[in-house]
Amino acid sequence: MRGFPSRMDVDDVARLVRELARPLGSEPVGLDDAVGRVLAGDVVAPVPVPGFARAAMDGYAVRGEETFGASDYNPLSFRLIGEAMPGRPYPGVVEPGQAVRIMTGAPVPAGADAVMMAEYASEDESGKSVAVTEPVPPGRHVGHIGEDIEAGQALLARGRVLRPQDVGVLASVGIATMPVIRRPIVRLVITGDELLPPGSTPAGARIVDSNSVMLDGLIRRDGGVVVRDAIVPDRRDAVEAAILDPRGDVVLVSGGSSVGSEDYAPVIVAERGELLVHGVALRPASPAGLGRIGHRLVFLLPGNPVSCLSAYDFFAGPAVRLLGGRAAEWPHRQVRARLARKIASAVGRVDYVRVRLGADGVEPLAISGASILSSTIRADGFVIVSKDSEGHAPGDEVLVYLYD
Amino acid sequence: MRGFPSRMDVDDVARLVRELARPLGSEPVGLDDAVGRVLAGDVVAPVPVPGFARAAMDGYAVRGEETFGASDYNPLSFRLIGEAMPGRPYPGVVEPGQAVRIMTGAPVPAGADAVMMAEYASEDESGKSVAVTEPVPPGRHVGHIGEDIEAGQALLARGRVLRPQDVGVLASVGIATMPVIRRPIVRLVITGDELLPPGSTPAGARIVDSNSVMLDGLIRRDGGVVVRDAIVPDRRDAVEAAILDPRGDVVLVSGGSSVGSEDYAPVIVAERGELLVHGVALRPASPAGLGRIGHRLVFLLPGNPVSCLSAYDFFAGPAVRLLGGRAAEWPHRQVRARLARKIASAVGRVDYVRVRLGADGVEPLAISGASILSSTIRADGFVIVSKDSEGHAPGDEVLVYLYD
Repeated sequence: MRGFPSRMDVDDVARLVRELARPLGSEPVGLDDAVGRVLAGDVVAPVPVPGFARAAMDGYAVRGEETFGASDYNPLSFRLIGEAMPGRPYPGVVEPGQAVRIMTGAPVPAGADAVMMAEYASEDESGKSVAVTEPVPPGRHVGHIGEDIEAGQALLARGRVLRPQDVGVLASVGIATMPVIRRPIVRLVITGDELLPPGSTPAGARIVDSNSVMLDGLIRRDGGVVVRDAIVPDRRDAVEAAILDPRGDVVLVSGGSSVGSEDYAPVIVAERGELLVHGVALRPASPAGLGRIGHRLVFLLPGNPVSCLSAYDFFAGPAVRLLGGRAAEWPHRQVRARLARKIASAVGRVDYVRVRLGADGVEPLAISGASILSSTIRADGFVIVSKDSEGHAPGDEVLVYLYD
Repeated sequence: MRGFPSRMDVDDVARLVRELARPLGSEPVGLDDAVGRVLAGDVVAPVPVPGFARAAMDGYAVRGEETFGASDYNPLSFRLIGEAMPGRPYPGVVEPGQAVRIMTGAPVPAGADAVMMAEYASEDESGKSVAVTEPVPPGRHVGHIGEDIEAGQALLARGRVLRPQDVGVLASVGIATMPVIRRPIVRLVITGDELLPPGSTPAGARIVDSNSVMLDGLIRRDGGVVVRDAIVPDRRDAVEAAILDPRGDVVLVSGGSSVGSEDYAPVIVAERGELLVHGVALRPASPAGLGRIGHRLVFLLPGNPVSCLSAYDFFAGPAVRLLGGRAAEWPHRQVRARLARKIASAVGRVDYVRVRLGADGVEPLAISGASILSSTIRADGFVIVSKDSEGHAPGDEVLVYLYD
């Protein structure tokens, strides 16, 4: 059995990922599918908001200067000539001495320049006139054209992850489609003679593939589109055919990443492309690797589910996010808290430590190795111990990345 | 024009929402659709993990006690009778004096009880025997049945929002479907004669409906399924038909929620069901309302987009999350930071203040009212000023809820 020639620093692998994973091209997307997508270009407003002078209050549209002097002791009367509703403007012109009943959002009719709030006005019983008891200066309670957004104004910049209200604003200015960065297509190559497809019952020496369902969820979290095929048997020709399949922007190979006699993936990547990383100073996930075949990045993830999670979150996840135009950084929520028990590590190696948040602080889960699947569900999150550290003592404040 | 009889406290409305919005029933979901769903029942492991004694290292399966005394000076030789690979067990029994080459994850063959690590063993050239130079006690480097997860063990509890690795573990123990809480179906009733459908260009006195696309994104964030129909004109019969339509677990009515002559929604809810809230001491979104028609909750959201966002995030959002079995709490990431400029509020009213995070701290956006659409895209998040507060002074630390 071969050994790893050397294990690469986690930081060096991360740097390599940032160099290699560049945002993909753009595609147009409609309003209904835009939330959560990443803008591929700057967006400017094609029209102003408001697009017409509109009432900011319910009340009466008047010529403001005609109300000067109005008070409780000196109510001024205006002839009520009609009403303006949102979407149903008053078609005529407000002449001196006239007023139009108006609702918030309705266009202020021509001639009028102010809206008298309803509470300072009272209509007579016939509805033919309205008496006002306060002055309202010209311009008051009128939203002017372009007051909120001017035509041509920069609205949102390239790289913006579109929020619900962003898409609402784009709809408001009449935009129907916008350019977004294409979602990376991530193809999963799940290898292992011992694996049964998800949904099977484990039987005899065969276990159920869990990495595909886990990776599927992680990739979708990171904005990728997943392509999954049947499980690939541990035969060189089958693994090679699966890795060389031209579909996808990235390939994640699960299993067969180590240095054993049946670990074909690193050899295939080295022979058919470039094996850039094989072996990382990270626990768990030290057998992880990274290569390139043509323009396509190939990540080698250990088959062990905990190592697979660690390797995804350290290397493949950032690549998926970067290809999709997102930030490489951990997407997890973070909290700072004190350790309840010590975390032991070793200088020169990064540790990915699953932890619980207990009443006494952060508890590292007592786990003997990578293969403790249950630790990933018991954990509330993880702590990263840097390569310069021998670990942390009880009481040390640590940064916890929360799973969820 | 009628006025609001009184405005209800935000806390009282929130309490009412928590009382009324109970988790919906359950439905089965497969592994591929399970991430992000909420478990409707506890899950126990039907089978143990590992399901068989398995090698935790690459090496040689032996009877451990036969290795006692082995050292560099006293290598002990075993007859190599075969190999065990993951999914391809060695079919025979390891008798005294024998060893089986074994890979991590492979079943430890009958007779053997320990795995000698490859680095302390060397095969002869014929591959017929292996010499070991370290003792390995029985049990070492063997993962025992149920060591990680025992059959019958509680795995995940009702209410769990399933994470990618949770679903992986469920796949591992042979689970194919699980009961999850049904997603709430949220029907949008968008009213307004002035509105053009999203994707249109604003023209004349008509503006484009943006609330439906914004609410769509917010509802999906909160785990709901959106049903959208055509825009409803401001006619009582049309609004009534739309509100009474029996589809959906919740109805969100956008627009026509106030006390103007064309604000039909509150009247309809009061007449055909119960109008529980109309008018809230919240800025913006004071004309928001809440009612019930049959078992269905009806939220009245102001048509103004900023007010609509505020009313959704305060009232409708928690209802959608609660119906889906999620926590009512704000889903936003939170940061604490100091105010760069003062926020003015009034005692008795809650303020939803859009803010930017600038170099100098938290800057409230200088906005005159609810209708400043652009504020929602310029904001990084919002600050809530409680009803007991007159606002915050520059330098005060405030909690910012981040949009994204």
